[in-house]
Amino acid sequence: MEKLREHIEQIARISDEEFEYIRTFFSLKRVRKNQYLISEGDEVKYEFMVLSGIYKVFYADAQGKEFIVQFAQKDWWMSDYQAFFKQQVATMYIECVEEGEVLFSTLHTREKLSSELHQMEHFFRIKLTNGYVAQQQRIKLLLSSTPHQRYEAFSKLYPNLLQRLPKKVIAEYLGVSRETLSRLYSK
Amino acid sequence: MEKLREHIEQIARISDEEFEYIRTFFSLKRVRKNQYLISEGDEVKYEFMVLSGIYKVFYADAQGKEFIVQFAQKDWWMSDYQAFFKQQVATMYIECVEEGEVLFSTLHTREKLSSELHQMEHFFRIKLTNGYVAQQQRIKLLLSSTPHQRYEAFSKLYPNLLQRLPKKVIAEYLGVSRETLSRLYSK
Repeated sequence: MEKLREHIEQIARISDEEFEYIRTFFSLKRVRKNQYLISEGDEVKYEFMVLSGIYKVFYADAQGKEFIVQFAQKDWWMSDYQAFFKQQVATMYIECVEEGEVLFSTLHTREKLSSELHQMEHFFRIKLTNGYVAQQQRIKLLLSSTPHQRYEAFSKLYPNLLQRLPKKVIAEYLGVSRETLSRLYSK
Repeated sequence: MEKLREHIEQIARISDEEFEYIRTFFSLKRVRKNQYLISEGDEVKYEFMVLSGIYKVFYADAQGKEFIVQFAQKDWWMSDYQAFFKQQVATMYIECVEEGEVLFSTLHTREKLSSELHQMEHFFRIKLTNGYVAQQQRIKLLLSSTPHQRYEAFSKLYPNLLQRLPKKVIAEYLGVSRETLSRLYSK
């Protein structure tokens, strides 16, 4: 839980007493490679804060083809946010790509802590701001017309993911074939 | 300015006194069709809240080809948010597609009001939450493989834009040709 405190305090000041209260709302979960945290059709009760490991958020079409919406790693929050915020069933999946640990909590937690502690509302607002900007980058990357541009943008934004993720997964994220990706790597 | 108050009070309760204070931070601007609110290379000092009209947020590649990141209409906030939050120069454009009015304010305003009034921090957090979910939808739309799927998703999300926007602009947003779009319309 010390990591949760460090994470919050990167953005917002909280007292010892406040943290003792906040921590009671979060639970720890170890996640194995290929384990699912959310599957299409599930009720989405939780959002997850990544302590370690890498996760992919994706959806699948009727033929089972996967479309990766985003990756998440240390200090990222993830969920099927449309379903989470609107308390609907999931239209996406979250799967663990590299094993690790996450904290999880409910929408009730987010709203209750935000309403009771101005500093926590601040924390969640700033995290959303960062997430919003990252998504805008993701949209730009998807709009970029050539595989080369996508690869360049991705490697600038997330150089560590380029090292840690299987090439197959990166190819999916970029929407290019394995062969095209290998050609880009070798340049 | 009454519209600003209505807009805030859809999400957060504020007193008359608080609103008199808040309103001093916002200015009104009338925008003509094809007028730019932000151009690539500009310092991004402002974010805009749409009172009326339709706007497109896009960037352009080296050949001048436009890629539409999002549309904005009544009650939406828009800016080149990466540049706005990080106080960098714009990498995108915002252009008016249908004339209207916007309110504009600075990053300083957003942070100051959020810090002084818990209710305003709540307001901005909830607006960001909605924006984040809309962007996740946009990403899903872009990842969808067929023009038909993109068109279906768009017409479900924004039926009014389908009526109001020129077909050329919708085709750009969906990343399909005019001819393809006409075929989709006629179905």
